[in-house]
Amino acid sequence: MNELLQQQMQFLIEIDKLKTIERQTRIIHGDRRENDAEHSWHLAMMALILQGHANQDVDLLKVMKMLLVHDLVEIDAGDTFAYDTVGYADKYEREMQAANRLFGLLPQAQAEELMNLWLEFEAKETPEAAFASSLDRMQPVIHNHQNEGDTWMKNNITSEQVLNRNREVERGSETLWEYVQEIVQDSVDQGILAKSAPQVTSE
Amino acid sequence: MNELLQQQMQFLIEIDKLKTIERQTRIIHGDRRENDAEHSWHLAMMALILQGHANQDVDLLKVMKMLLVHDLVEIDAGDTFAYDTVGYADKYEREMQAANRLFGLLPQAQAEELMNLWLEFEAKETPEAAFASSLDRMQPVIHNHQNEGDTWMKNNITSEQVLNRNREVERGSETLWEYVQEIVQDSVDQGILAKSAPQVTSE
Repeated sequence: MNELLQQQMQFLIEIDKLKTIERQTRIIHGDRRENDAEHSWHLAMMALILQGHANQDVDLLKVMKMLLVHDLVEIDAGDTFAYDTVGYADKYEREMQAANRLFGLLPQAQAEELMNLWLEFEAKETPEAAFASSLDRMQPVIHNHQNEGDTWMKNNITSEQVLNRNREVERGSETLWEYVQEIVQDSVDQGILAKSAPQVTSE
Repeated sequence: MNELLQQQMQFLIEIDKLKTIERQTRIIHGDRRENDAEHSWHLAMMALILQGHANQDVDLLKVMKMLLVHDLVEIDAGDTFAYDTVGYADKYEREMQAANRLFGLLPQAQAEELMNLWLEFEAKETPEAAFASSLDRMQPVIHNHQNEGDTWMKNNITSEQVLNRNREVERGSETLWEYVQEIVQDSVDQGILAKSAPQVTSE
């Protein structure tokens, strides 16, 4: 077998592990946690269907590539829960090591392409990265809204925390940010997401 | 919320069900069956990494869209095992009904786009569909080769059946078809895939 194909196949077999990396979020139509591979598929479908709501014109192929690739580093670094401030402290370092190992399995030009896609996604600066990141942020909100609060209720998360974490959805899509605010409000109204704790006045 | 977005979100929530549709094939790095959503992600990654081996230049975005969408009909129609000739008898009819219902959830232009992508994939005639189909055929061969024969052994499948079913990989990629033949031969050598039954001669 030619060496190029051998390297590529080794990478494609290795990344099957993404199917075993569990997220905190549950799937909507079943009682189990979602894994990173099916999550990545769902986000790529969201990009296809929702691209018209991006604030700026985006290169859909690039958005899709980013979303398919963005969580591969979690094969080594694991999933870090959105509201886990301790886990976030060394997240970037752990993920960079993972990126070097995983993308390094590929022929050099492809290793560089995937590294650049991942770094661009993480930086959230280009229109494609901003939009891809909006979808990645928004998806667990949709799942929790459909799943009676799920990880919000389990972790005593408030609507203020959800809105703060998801405010950057607006950078990718104002329309989707409005949508997020609507379902956060609806979740509070349904009693599946706590209102922000009232400010204690010192009087 | 605007009506367009409402329809799109309804579709995106409905297709979460793809995560619950189990295939016969097991994942490589874990002891459970693969579901259609993570399978679709894996195929889109294969398209990204292996596009250079397609017989003809392909529009990668179109290949990816097809692969992300190609199994959605199984939400209603279920997965039909590759070697199940009875299940194949009414497969197309069941899947067409599913396509009409699912894609029909979307705004009309998008419903048409997804229907056309699915029909193009099924027809396997364009360079994109031929290549996408090659990947879809090849992936379970890789999994069975990695998983000690798995569904081949369970269902008494012979190498002749595997080669017959996968011969169309060649239409999308001669290089990948050579690769399939190599791992089929290696599987026979390892004793994880039965050789074709010897012809009984009448003397």
